[in-house]
Amino acid sequence: MIENPYYGHEFHGDYDLISIGEFPLEEGGTIPDLSLAVATFGELNEAKDNAILVTTWYSGTHQIFRDVYLGSEHALNPEKYFIVVINQIGGGLSTSPHNASGPNQAIAMSRFPHVRIGDDVRAQEQLLREHFGIETLQLVVGGSMGAQQTYEWIVRFPDKVKRAAPIAGTAQNTPHDFLYTKALVEAITSDPGFNGGEYSSNADVVEGLKRHAGIWAVMGFSTEFWKQEVWRALEFDSKEAFIEGFLEPYFTVMDPNDLLCTAWKWQHGDVARHTGGDLAAALARSTAKVRIMPISEDMFFPVRDHQAEQVLTPNSDLRVIDDVLGHLALFGVAPTYIGQVDAYLTELLDS
Amino acid sequence: MIENPYYGHEFHGDYDLISIGEFPLEEGGTIPDLSLAVATFGELNEAKDNAILVTTWYSGTHQIFRDVYLGSEHALNPEKYFIVVINQIGGGLSTSPHNASGPNQAIAMSRFPHVRIGDDVRAQEQLLREHFGIETLQLVVGGSMGAQQTYEWIVRFPDKVKRAAPIAGTAQNTPHDFLYTKALVEAITSDPGFNGGEYSSNADVVEGLKRHAGIWAVMGFSTEFWKQEVWRALEFDSKEAFIEGFLEPYFTVMDPNDLLCTAWKWQHGDVARHTGGDLAAALARSTAKVRIMPISEDMFFPVRDHQAEQVLTPNSDLRVIDDVLGHLALFGVAPTYIGQVDAYLTELLDS
Repeated sequence: MIENPYYGHEFHGDYDLISIGEFPLEEGGTIPDLSLAVATFGELNEAKDNAILVTTWYSGTHQIFRDVYLGSEHALNPEKYFIVVINQIGGGLSTSPHNASGPNQAIAMSRFPHVRIGDDVRAQEQLLREHFGIETLQLVVGGSMGAQQTYEWIVRFPDKVKRAAPIAGTAQNTPHDFLYTKALVEAITSDPGFNGGEYSSNADVVEGLKRHAGIWAVMGFSTEFWKQEVWRALEFDSKEAFIEGFLEPYFTVMDPNDLLCTAWKWQHGDVARHTGGDLAAALARSTAKVRIMPISEDMFFPVRDHQAEQVLTPNSDLRVIDDVLGHLALFGVAPTYIGQVDAYLTELLDS
Repeated sequence: MIENPYYGHEFHGDYDLISIGEFPLEEGGTIPDLSLAVATFGELNEAKDNAILVTTWYSGTHQIFRDVYLGSEHALNPEKYFIVVINQIGGGLSTSPHNASGPNQAIAMSRFPHVRIGDDVRAQEQLLREHFGIETLQLVVGGSMGAQQTYEWIVRFPDKVKRAAPIAGTAQNTPHDFLYTKALVEAITSDPGFNGGEYSSNADVVEGLKRHAGIWAVMGFSTEFWKQEVWRALEFDSKEAFIEGFLEPYFTVMDPNDLLCTAWKWQHGDVARHTGGDLAAALARSTAKVRIMPISEDMFFPVRDHQAEQVLTPNSDLRVIDDVLGHLALFGVAPTYIGQVDAYLTELLDS
């Protein structure tokens, strides 16, 4: 393992590390001692039926949900619901390549096994059941890779999910998305400092991480975000200053192997693995009320990819979030973003 | 200079290298002896008023026009017009970093100066006038960076251009496009084999050129191109085979410094340099009949960026080419592509 202060309480506030023990993985191999980083908000009622599960995205943690999505003024209201945000395996807070130590020493760094979306969802289900006694979720909600996990929930555990809201992400990863992620991966692995995953500090890979940020700049926002200079709202005075002052620092504090672990997971997300490749049959398993929420200007999870899956998903509808930021609208920077999310989720929760 | 057999007659058929002598550049510096690679089709009439100029795109040469766009069955008909395709400075056939030698030895490889779209257009005007005696063009047409040159023509030499057809490219490069090109550049320059531009063969930079191809895979085609597996029409049986068998070999034969020279030019394309940054004032100089032709699924020269410039361009209209390939529809792979181009150009030429 290597020390990386970004992945700790100083930057991420309160969360608990909860071990669920040895965890066998779908691709083979096992995590000897899987700990999930869990942040909870609100209180679980006696019937244990007021829980909402929030899943996390690539490079994201519970922090963005705490700061942007949750609160008594939001649909995800801790005064009403017990909200559990479970950080991804490999995402840096839960068991991940960079922090694997002790019983996990054998899978540290470059030796970390491939993890699938299905592994996360199985681990989440086990943790919710064993640790909290939760058997039913009022809602599963997440963006991007969090949407992949949301879809996996309604296909794998349909009886446990009453409502689901995948935001800006698909049930079956698209080939274009695979290639986009491949470019991100190669930006990191091509850095000589990466050293096959055996660097001594994420700082060794800073050039690769900056190129990775540069590719996010191209695909993560929309063409209009740049043309309209929307970054001025964040008080930068040039696009270069925005990239150097926001996008690069956002990624360069992170761990390269952790990003690669979750990138592989993102690339291979596909609920149709449950049904021999038949996406329609997989989605047909869902019994939840599903609200699918693409972002209007998303360049790599475009609206039409959501539409194609919505028509295959029983009891579902589509609500497009209008936001010029594109995919990274998920950060909630635009003042009009969270209001749309809240309105769509409140309707869903009240139905 | 270094030898690169790709840039020669074996791969590019007939063309002439025409020197226009010492050529001062807009960014400072000069090319001691500028040769332009010129391919002509048809015959110049006595009045010298039947000429069409075709400009070339990033990584492109006259070859694609000869093979896809020109012929008696096309709008660009050599039986009717004298069609002159002039290859870009820095594009590999005209004077370029990799082939600078003799009088150009001092600007070889990494020492090649920055070249602007305006330099190309001035050189083209000089060559057409001095070498062919052409003072008026029936049409200037080009795609992508060729569209940038087309716009530069109507702003810089309005009296010389009767008609103009920029395809899939803009008069003022967008910030998103700048960042896309930056990612392409960094894929090449980050390769240790690039060696600051002083490699001994393009093969030294093959890994960087492959990553450059990988980023083209993400942005050059549309999300639907990949989802619909349109590459099957080219007789590949997986997207990986298509990338390894088509997109990577397309770029890995090329010269890294030449690509970087033209990438810089692409990034800095802006007709508003003539009018102190006022794009509307620059485009208002045009007296040609202009037909602006975006491609429906283009991810980095999107339709709306063309619309924004069309409303500023006098005597112009917009015709969207419908093609799922996205920007690289320019290759003319889809059987429905060239028919649309021909129809739109024929209307323009007949008006």
